[in-house]
Amino acid sequence: ALAHLDHDRALRRGYPEAIYCEYKSIVQIRAIAAAVRDRAHEQSGVISPVLFTRASAEQAEAVLAELPDAVHHEDAKLVVWPTTPPEPTGGLVVVAAAGTSDLAVAREAELTARYLGRRTVLVVDVGVAGLHRVLGRLDVLREAAVVVVVAGMDGALPSVVAGLVRTPVVAVPTSVGYGAAFEGLAPLLSMLNSCSPGVGVVNIDNGYGGGHLAAQIAANGNPDTA
Amino acid sequence: ALAHLDHDRALRRGYPEAIYCEYKSIVQIRAIAAAVRDRAHEQSGVISPVLFTRASAEQAEAVLAELPDAVHHEDAKLVVWPTTPPEPTGGLVVVAAAGTSDLAVAREAELTARYLGRRTVLVVDVGVAGLHRVLGRLDVLREAAVVVVVAGMDGALPSVVAGLVRTPVVAVPTSVGYGAAFEGLAPLLSMLNSCSPGVGVVNIDNGYGGGHLAAQIAANGNPDTA
Amino acid sequence: ALAHLDHDRALRRGYPEAIYCEYKSIVQIRAIAAAVRDRAHEQSGVISPVLFTRASAEQAEAVLAELPDAVHHEDAKLVVWPTTPPEPTGGLVVVAAAGTSDLAVAREAELTARYLGRRTVLVVDVGVAGLHRVLGRLDVLREAAVVVVVAGMDGALPSVVAGLVRTPVVAVPTSVGYGAAFEGLAPLLSMLNSCSPGVGVVNIDNGYGGGHLAAQIAANGNPDTA
Amino acid sequence: ALAHLDHDRALRRGYPEAIYCEYKSIVQIRAIAAAVRDRAHEQSGVISPVLFTRASAEQAEAVLAELPDAVHHEDAKLVVWPTTPPEPTGGLVVVAAAGTSDLAVAREAELTARYLGRRTVLVVDVGVAGLHRVLGRLDVLREAAVVVVVAGMDGALPSVVAGLVRTPVVAVPTSVGYGAAFEGLAPLLSMLNSCSPGVGVVNIDNGYGGGHLAAQIAANGNPDTA
Amino acid sequence: ALAHLDHDRALRRGYPEAIYCEYKSIVQIRAIAAAVRDRAHEQSGVISPVLFTRASAEQAEAVLAELPDAVHHEDAKLVVWPTTPPEPTGGLVVVAAAGTSDLAVAREAELTARYLGRRTVLVVDVGVAGLHRVLGRLDVLREAAVVVVVAGMDGALPSVVAGLVRTPVVAVPTSVGYGAAFEGLAPLLSMLNSCSPGVGVVNIDNGYGGGHLAAQIAANGNPDTA
Amino acid sequence: ALAHLDHDRALRRGYPEAIYCEYKSIVQIRAIAAAVRDRAHEQSGVISPVLFTRASAEQAEAVLAELPDAVHHEDAKLVVWPTTPPEPTGGLVVVAAAGTSDLAVAREAELTARYLGRRTVLVVDVGVAGLHRVLGRLDVLREAAVVVVVAGMDGALPSVVAGLVRTPVVAVPTSVGYGAAFEGLAPLLSMLNSCSPGVGVVNIDNGYGGGHLAAQIAANGNPDTA
Amino acid sequence: ALAHLDHDRALRRGYPEAIYCEYKSIVQIRAIAAAVRDRAHEQSGVISPVLFTRASAEQAEAVLAELPDAVHHEDAKLVVWPTTPPEPTGGLVVVAAAGTSDLAVAREAELTARYLGRRTVLVVDVGVAGLHRVLGRLDVLREAAVVVVVAGMDGALPSVVAGLVRTPVVAVPTSVGYGAAFEGLAPLLSMLNSCSPGVGVVNIDNGYGGGHLAAQIAANGNPDTA
Amino acid sequence: ALAHLDHDRALRRGYPEAIYCEYKSIVQIRAIAAAVRDRAHEQSGVISPVLFTRASAEQAEAVLAELPDAVHHEDAKLVVWPTTPPEPTGGLVVVAAAGTSDLAVAREAELTARYLGRRTVLVVDVGVAGLHRVLGRLDVLREAAVVVVVAGMDGALPSVVAGLVRTPVVAVPTSVGYGAAFEGLAPLLSMLNSCSPGVGVVNIDNGYGGGHLAAQIAANGNPDTA
Ligand SMILES: Nc1ncnc2c1ncn2[C@@H]1O[C@H](COP(=O)(O)O)[C@@H](O)[C@H]1O
Ligand SMILES: Nc1ncnc2c1ncn2[C@@H]1O[C@H](COP(=O)(O)O)[C@@H](O)[C@H]1O
Ligand SMILES: Nc1ncnc2c1ncn2[C@@H]1O[C@H](COP(=O)(O)O)[C@@H](O)[C@H]1O
Ligand SMILES: Nc1ncnc2c1ncn2[C@@H]1O[C@H](COP(=O)(O)O)[C@@H](O)[C@H]1O
Ligand SMILES: [Mg+2]
Ligand SMILES: [Mg+2]
Ligand SMILES: [Mg+2]
Ligand SMILES: [Mg+2]
Ligand SMILES: [Mg+2]
Ligand SMILES: [Mg+2]
Ligand SMILES: [Mg+2]
Ligand SMILES: [Mg+2]
Repeated sequence: ALAHLDHDRALRRGYPEAIYCEYKSIVQIRAIAAAVRDRAHEQSGVISPVLFTRASAEQAEAVLAELPDAVHHEDAKLVVWPTTPPEPTGGLVVVAAAGTSDLAVAREAELTARYLGRRTVLVVDVGVAGLHRVLGRLDVLREAAVVVVVAGMDGALPSVVAGLVRTPVVAVPTSVGYGAAFEGLAPLLSMLNSCSPGVGVVNIDNGYGGGHLAAQIAANGNPDTA
Repeated sequence: ALAHLDHDRALRRGYPEAIYCEYKSIVQIRAIAAAVRDRAHEQSGVISPVLFTRASAEQAEAVLAELPDAVHHEDAKLVVWPTTPPEPTGGLVVVAAAGTSDLAVAREAELTARYLGRRTVLVVDVGVAGLHRVLGRLDVLREAAVVVVVAGMDGALPSVVAGLVRTPVVAVPTSVGYGAAFEGLAPLLSMLNSCSPGVGVVNIDNGYGGGHLAAQIAANGNPDTA
Repeated sequence: ALAHLDHDRALRRGYPEAIYCEYKSIVQIRAIAAAVRDRAHEQSGVISPVLFTRASAEQAEAVLAELPDAVHHEDAKLVVWPTTPPEPTGGLVVVAAAGTSDLAVAREAELTARYLGRRTVLVVDVGVAGLHRVLGRLDVLREAAVVVVVAGMDGALPSVVAGLVRTPVVAVPTSVGYGAAFEGLAPLLSMLNSCSPGVGVVNIDNGYGGGHLAAQIAANGNPDTA
Repeated sequence: ALAHLDHDRALRRGYPEAIYCEYKSIVQIRAIAAAVRDRAHEQSGVISPVLFTRASAEQAEAVLAELPDAVHHEDAKLVVWPTTPPEPTGGLVVVAAAGTSDLAVAREAELTARYLGRRTVLVVDVGVAGLHRVLGRLDVLREAAVVVVVAGMDGALPSVVAGLVRTPVVAVPTSVGYGAAFEGLAPLLSMLNSCSPGVGVVNIDNGYGGGHLAAQIAANGNPDTA
Repeated sequence: ALAHLDHDRALRRGYPEAIYCEYKSIVQIRAIAAAVRDRAHEQSGVISPVLFTRASAEQAEAVLAELPDAVHHEDAKLVVWPTTPPEPTGGLVVVAAAGTSDLAVAREAELTARYLGRRTVLVVDVGVAGLHRVLGRLDVLREAAVVVVVAGMDGALPSVVAGLVRTPVVAVPTSVGYGAAFEGLAPLLSMLNSCSPGVGVVNIDNGYGGGHLAAQIAANGNPDTA
Repeated sequence: ALAHLDHDRALRRGYPEAIYCEYKSIVQIRAIAAAVRDRAHEQSGVISPVLFTRASAEQAEAVLAELPDAVHHEDAKLVVWPTTPPEPTGGLVVVAAAGTSDLAVAREAELTARYLGRRTVLVVDVGVAGLHRVLGRLDVLREAAVVVVVAGMDGALPSVVAGLVRTPVVAVPTSVGYGAAFEGLAPLLSMLNSCSPGVGVVNIDNGYGGGHLAAQIAANGNPDTA
Repeated sequence: ALAHLDHDRALRRGYPEAIYCEYKSIVQIRAIAAAVRDRAHEQSGVISPVLFTRASAEQAEAVLAELPDAVHHEDAKLVVWPTTPPEPTGGLVVVAAAGTSDLAVAREAELTARYLGRRTVLVVDVGVAGLHRVLGRLDVLREAAVVVVVAGMDGALPSVVAGLVRTPVVAVPTSVGYGAAFEGLAPLLSMLNSCSPGVGVVNIDNGYGGGHLAAQIAANGNPDTA
Repeated sequence: ALAHLDHDRALRRGYPEAIYCEYKSIVQIRAIAAAVRDRAHEQSGVISPVLFTRASAEQAEAVLAELPDAVHHEDAKLVVWPTTPPEPTGGLVVVAAAGTSDLAVAREAELTARYLGRRTVLVVDVGVAGLHRVLGRLDVLREAAVVVVVAGMDGALPSVVAGLVRTPVVAVPTSVGYGAAFEGLAPLLSMLNSCSPGVGVVNIDNGYGGGHLAAQIAANGNPDTA
């Protein structure tokens, strides 16, 4: 067998396995999608949505060939099946993208959190070069049970946000930028050295991981007020 | 003035400012300790404990000169005043140290979480070289609202733990190790690349940051069961 | 002459030279394949299989133009001539791939060991995010004379495996992953810092080297039980 | 001769040479200090102050042995002779230190700018973790002809400041911090990637260079309003 | 909304926002260009030119689809609208490119400074391998209120220039080069370690940032003589 | 409890746990040594020697305070108790040190292999700058079941040795050297890129790990001839 | 003017300028080639060959459009005009390539030395994995006035060669390899740390620089015997 | 035996072995010094001076205990025995130190070249921040058969010098500097990327290697004019 899915994960951890598509061949992706479908048939009850992450156009097609009713979120490179997110529980997840260029990763984070069962709000283009923008969104940031901050050229943003709210901040550095950004190393180090405590960092461009962690943190949040 | 404390932080964020002692002179430390004391006198009501982190023996003495009833936790390089942690609320914070050598950072994390108002448990020497050790502690790990994993030579441990629990994992890489550990770079990268989602990473040796983030995550946890 | 093959290697070391195809032009590859064929004609007795490693589709074709009865293992980017592996001797080589995405490198390792004269078994998708998977294969891992662990996002796996078996572990980091994986640097450092002793590391993506070292280690192993 | 001072620099560039003390022996320092004194005797007219930078206590003593009326600014590791700064001209140089721990480098910048002929103001402890602190000093920041921002753990500060003022910002990363600060690499990269344009960066801990550049930038500033 | 332009920047900082095109989709670029146009219609008086930086051919076309009278400077990957630079004020900005290969970044710096309101001169191919070339341009370098030095293989040039002039030098490392240039890291480090004080460094290939900083520095320069 | 020894390791893996002394306090070391002694009393039969690695003089003393009949190998920073290595089995382990400066790590490797039950030979000062030295020892190198090559400034040596023998080579880079050796990074990369297959690399300065892996590899070797 | 050739270089240094083609547009290349031709017409006497280095196929065509009688050495990415090397003087330059994959860089070095006026010999595929190959060429290596060693996966070769000859060795690391070769960093560090003195290193893949330095070193060599 | 000197080196290479003292114990140093003395007694004829490099004060004493008539050059950390350099032959070696702080490494280079049989001249403090200094020494630089340039903060100097002379330049980066000098990495990269061809680089702080290579290059130089 090419793959050995961690089917047991939803039971053990409360969240289903996701399929990381990069470096997998079309044949492998199809085989995995088929296995997902087949297992679903063996199960009774509601099935949690399975995420295929970082899927290229061609890989997304391969998934859809086996699971024709899956949904493909191109902007986030995500394919999801079955397509309906669970009824939201827990607190609100706010995802803040520093710039328009960071939007793809921010969307991956937002959709992940939503498919894992949380309400989400997306806030865009609130970089610190124009502080009034993030200060102008303090209301929604303070409603969140957790804030996911996604930034490449603006590694400073998680520190600024964490300094303004009570809740944990999940920081997702992106590879947006050039030169001494070194493919996301600069915002990664910035975020790890945040002078505001309360920031947990995930891998560069890891919108999936950031959304997952946020969903876990917000699991016990009050659905009305954070 | 040498310093300009963020007195407003407890109100704004719910947690008081901490004083980072490294690179500060004895004169500076004393002045800050005195300012902390003087402000307390101006306030009414209960004062949240102020943490002096990464304090050398000599710096700890300087704090104690101004705040003689402070407590010095030598193993964690922490000085705290006033000395009584708040009555614990929220969920349980479990701190797991991979090896005995990681204990200093683990203690800093544990004490930080406790002084910020959480119940804490410390688990030691559960490195993956002998898996039965971490598997033997699954009960306590699964009681936690959040697990802080502290590891230097054992960068693998957060992945293993996150794969076994439902709750978020805060990973604290340490500079314990030598050679290609590159002062904590190896476990840092390991943790950022965790194949188990649900891991948020803080700076190398940042027990304070790890404990703070954990306290925030556990703030809404059920005090009885995680 | 474009190349100067180390014909003497099989005699001196017991294993024949392999041809590293990257950075070689089609003209060079053809010339080398022809030289391999011509020398074989001058030799009497059985010829050990010669490996052409990391061959692109076009390079593989060039080898086949000179050696039409060679075999092309596309999944491992290997071309081999003559095609029959020697009758296996020594102990068993088990190759364990952490994820499906690591399969190409794992196959290169497995085929190398087999063409150098060992029995091999391939175990796939046993990442530590779901520990039950690797624990479920303990039987085959403990039968091995040596285990080759191939992993990119799961740099932790060699430590976990080495902690469970008596035999040496050969660790092959892969460039599978993104962001702070830094093209395989993260699992490489993880593996070098393994807290379980008994792990020897080879270059990132070096399935050939990992399989070769494993074949040497298992040379004296008991063919029945490891 | 051990050294060959660039005596001509004040004429050519408008600012005198400074002596970098690190890696120089006590014998070398004394010889250079004596040469400075001897040349002064040969000159007529006012002598611009010569700076001995990054001087250890012992090196400072060696300078004072030859130039007994020099002044030693211990907090900035500077020795200066003659001791009187020129009558200030040009615009105001504001030096902002993110934290108390960055004070030594900030003072080196401030004193350098003052001895090169500018009015200076020092602002301390305005890190972004408590944004109200930097926002509370906007008046003085907006009076400056140039702002020097000195920060180690708060690599975000220059971006925030540059986003609020019209004037150039000179960013001086410091080695204050630990772990993934990598001796100042983190704030250095942060500052180079500033999402606010108008930031010029100098070497880590290079208060001298930051103050020098600021003095040059402010040379043509209006002495009354920036 | 996909983006949230910092319209207020021209008022707050004196220079309008620029649009960083990399990592933005064609749809996003068009939406932003349309927003720029629409806002202009709402404003009365002269509009400062808006810069679209690092625009690919396709992105430039997208801007021109919304703003047909914009100008596309292909050599600098810049699109600008409206097309007329302001009447120049302040001192002269001289941009010096070490080699012909550095010309694209140098042009981006020059055009940025010009569109922000400065007179500019471009000097090309004055690498230190033939010192007479830079020495032969001392006249124009000494006329400048600020010199922008753009260099990839010639990281030495800013030190040499700064040693010859009274004015600040803005150093822009480029990614021109190969091998141990490490995509611009070598000239970046060279420039940060400049043995001549008076050098402020911006990001690798950041012609925009270099030109912006230079325009700010020269804002108060004497328009006739530097 | 401060520590939780992996007592079960000898059974599970065939080799007992070792105690890594760095970063452990004197109090912790004493407690662990006492635990080792107490457990021994509870066991019957022969006890495998326990290794305390990288022990400072002061830590060695602490071990000896609890285990007075332990032996302290100062040159290798090892303390061992009980002191008698097992009767050797398996093949010969040859440890080759490139230079005299690499001797400490080489001795750690040799003693580890010996205490784990192998015959060992140490060969010193066979760097490739004088090839006749290593060629002059081919006899003993070819007798080995495995060769451990320890080198800092001579990262080339494992490639040369592996090219001359049939057996696996364990390469141990050392931090001996300066400048662009970058604390052992240079030989580490050299060894990972070995053009001779058959080299497994362990951490910089990890004589313990190198000796342990060698002991495992040689476990099945013919005691008379390799 | 787009470029400002260092025409004076042949007089000043004895060797003409070369044109580095990477990052130059077709228009720029043509303009430079035309300038080279035009200047030649103004000169009397013999013209030293001008080298266009690292030329792509398209760039080579652009040079040939202006200088139709130039020669294009595709294997070395060199275009040269006029085509006749000077009558050789000085000592012999031997260029040794470790593997066939290093041949392109080795040829660039060889041709450069030849066009600068030296006799050259090329030796291929003498990697240390089969030491007999380099030992078998000791005669020609010992005839050289200087040896240029070109190697990527075989960073060890310059040390081995330098240990066997009296003459200087110029080491040229190549980017041949993968994984922990880090684009040539591994052989670069190896060569800088050579335990045999007498090795001067140039940039990764810099065959031009290696050949140039070798030509200078051999300038005074005895044409008959080195 | 602790060491195995390469006695044969003077015959094979023309230059005797040197002893690298770092990481060697006092006992080892004494044993080696004694071996040097004993071998000398067995030899007839003139003995070439043996160099003990990078010797600490204590190690120097250990050498002098065995070889009381050795000479200790403290400024260069060199001990030499026998003390008389050979009668100089070949061309002149000029060693140029960029700053006074680079003097120790420059002296090591100079003395090495002298003890290997060359005439030497030392030029100090000719950094490019004041170009007139290096231009003022063009006469002596142009007399050299080879120039050794030693620089830490002035990585630009070798490019400038190589652009002015016909002879090869040996570049020795030093660890003088701070911050983004990264212990000599910045000048090392600068030198490797020199835009002037004709520069061979040795390890950071490797005055010995630089002097050795220079002595070899100058071996055939004309003793009167370079
Ligand atoms: N985009 C992603 N980034 C990081 N981890 C992921 C991503 N998508 C899935 N994963 C995790 O990677 C694990 C291994 O994936 P696989 O290679 O499919 O076996 C999955 O179980 C997921 O938990
Ligand atoms: N995929 C590979 N990775 C690492 N080394 C290899 C690989 N394939 C072949 N080699 C080794 O590289 C040596 C040099 O190859 P070549 O460039 O063909 O002369 C061969 O002798 C093999 O031992
Ligand atoms: N010098 C060493 N280098 C690497 N690993 C070691 C060393 N000494 C002991 N170890 C391993 O490190 C593990 C963790 O050690 P500890 O911190 O004592 O719990 C031990 O079980 C040993 O397997
Ligand atoms: N392949 C090459 N590698 C390194 N330097 C080169 C190369 N080709 C030419 N050069 C040098 O680079 C300098 C700068 O080139 P240019 O960018 O053409 O002004 C030239 O003067 C040459 O000395
Ligand atoms: Mg924006
Ligand atoms: Mg342990
Ligand atoms: Mg998987
Ligand atoms: Mg503060
Ligand atoms: Mg040029
Ligand atoms: Mg030796
Ligand atoms: Mg070969
Ligand atoms: Mg100087």
